[in-house]
Amino acid sequence: MNLALIQTALIAFLIGLVLAPVFIKLLRRLSFGQQIREEGPRRHYKKAGTPTMGGVIFLAAALPAILLFAPRNLPLLLVLFLMLGNGLIGFVDDYLKVVKKQSLGLKARSKLFGQFLTVLVFYVAWRYAGPADTVLQVPFTDWMLDLGVLYPFFLLFFVFGFTNAVNLTDGVDGLAGGTAILALLAYLLIAVRQEASSLSHYCAAMIGAVFAFLIYNLHPARVFMGDVGSLSLGGALAALAVLTKTELYLLIIGGVFVIEAFSVIIQVIVFQSTGRRVFRMSPLHHHYELGGHSEWRVVTGFWAAGFILAVIGLLQVGAL
Amino acid sequence: MNLALIQTALIAFLIGLVLAPVFIKLLRRLSFGQQIREEGPRRHYKKAGTPTMGGVIFLAAALPAILLFAPRNLPLLLVLFLMLGNGLIGFVDDYLKVVKKQSLGLKARSKLFGQFLTVLVFYVAWRYAGPADTVLQVPFTDWMLDLGVLYPFFLLFFVFGFTNAVNLTDGVDGLAGGTAILALLAYLLIAVRQEASSLSHYCAAMIGAVFAFLIYNLHPARVFMGDVGSLSLGGALAALAVLTKTELYLLIIGGVFVIEAFSVIIQVIVFQSTGRRVFRMSPLHHHYELGGHSEWRVVTGFWAAGFILAVIGLLQVGAL
Repeated sequence: MNLALIQTALIAFLIGLVLAPVFIKLLRRLSFGQQIREEGPRRHYKKAGTPTMGGVIFLAAALPAILLFAPRNLPLLLVLFLMLGNGLIGFVDDYLKVVKKQSLGLKARSKLFGQFLTVLVFYVAWRYAGPADTVLQVPFTDWMLDLGVLYPFFLLFFVFGFTNAVNLTDGVDGLAGGTAILALLAYLLIAVRQEASSLSHYCAAMIGAVFAFLIYNLHPARVFMGDVGSLSLGGALAALAVLTKTELYLLIIGGVFVIEAFSVIIQVIVFQSTGRRVFRMSPLHHHYELGGHSEWRVVTGFWAAGFILAVIGLLQVGAL
Repeated sequence: MNLALIQTALIAFLIGLVLAPVFIKLLRRLSFGQQIREEGPRRHYKKAGTPTMGGVIFLAAALPAILLFAPRNLPLLLVLFLMLGNGLIGFVDDYLKVVKKQSLGLKARSKLFGQFLTVLVFYVAWRYAGPADTVLQVPFTDWMLDLGVLYPFFLLFFVFGFTNAVNLTDGVDGLAGGTAILALLAYLLIAVRQEASSLSHYCAAMIGAVFAFLIYNLHPARVFMGDVGSLSLGGALAALAVLTKTELYLLIIGGVFVIEAFSVIIQVIVFQSTGRRVFRMSPLHHHYELGGHSEWRVVTGFWAAGFILAVIGLLQVGAL
């Protein structure tokens, strides 16, 4: 960890602080705020009117800092590409929902097709730099799993899964943003350890930028990150895991996202087969909210879990 | 072409003739018929009440003939797997729609995930037999396009795309079935040419079985093939194209399916960007129906197009 990284994070943070109020005003004018999902807890109804698409704030804050301070190389381009590619898909989805008032936004099929293309280009560019490393290290073991020619299938599933997991997690003020910061911090340490200076600067800038966004996103939120935010964060973390060859460790480091996603899968499967609900409501954060915990308590609890999981992941990677 | 193939086709046809009335009675009892899409032409409203899931008829008719007469080897297993895997996904979708009355059936995401797994297993098994041939021959040229490690991406897109194309085509009595028979006939000739005796027997059995189904599916249809039928036919044709290394030729041989799919894509893109419709209604067959052509005239016209395209494809492959 050095001063240059702190500087990068700080610059991104300051840009974010300046941009946030401007963007929030702009986003509010662009729309009349997001329609709140009817399936959410009742308490969330009052959230109608809060502008969404706030992910553009941290993207716009991080980019200048990254371009200014991070050494430019292929890994940096790759992580930027996967983040911005997914961000663009999220942006189109948000735009259709918020501005065009198409309540369903992009169809699942079009969204997956966009992500498919993004992963395809990412993989081609990654291979361009040399033979892709198709070996997965399995956490808690010495196992090395060589996927060989199956790696593309894994990559697609990994990026689809993780971006959607972050997307599902983004349902309570500050939850996805704060948890993403913890995971980005872990990847900052991993990048430093691997002497991948462009990636460590990238992480630093993202941490600063998301932090600035978080100030406006904490309860009561003045802006939501939207799909542009959650998909770009998911893409960023997936790309970091691939480029530092810690793919399976991301499932621990970003374990909160994984647990949230699994809570939805379990709820749907159990409900469809037995008609009973495992959780009061999924994703998991709604389960605790409906259990009578305040939104703030749920968020801080999940952050604590995210912190512990990030530490465990870092210990496993050997970066702590 | 030899007598053994004609025998295989005939046996499958006869089994289909026997099974069809039994299955139709069963399917009618299982449901009160498919809910007709509200977006279809008005004329189709009267189709409510016709049982769907008729694809099980030709699958059940083809399987015994295939198991009796086709030499068992890996290519046969692979084509059966991709057909039955996609058929199973279609079956679950139909079942949820028809029996459980969930009007949307499987969500697009779950469906794509199922297809993803199917293609993954197909690819693993294919590679198991030796290094997969990742070279695509480009029709009308001498070009050989080696996709190398990108082949899995192509394969996913190919199978997703083609199964959905057949699915979209299945909107007028006899259209998807008849066009599939033409494409299967073309692949019968290609398999004979390549001396792939297991695949030629497979094609023969499928032709016989779908023919038997078609008798009950011609206007006015007494049964629809459903997603179980269209997805399994799409999977079968995609697998045949992969195993005979004529992937891009399938786009000609099964050109009717491709044109139908593109009519939907063009319609959606143009409508969303300009607000105008290119076709009176998509898929293309509805465009002609609404243009005043009878259902029978549309079907026979599309069959004629399918025949010409199959001949062009076969000439290009060099199997005629």
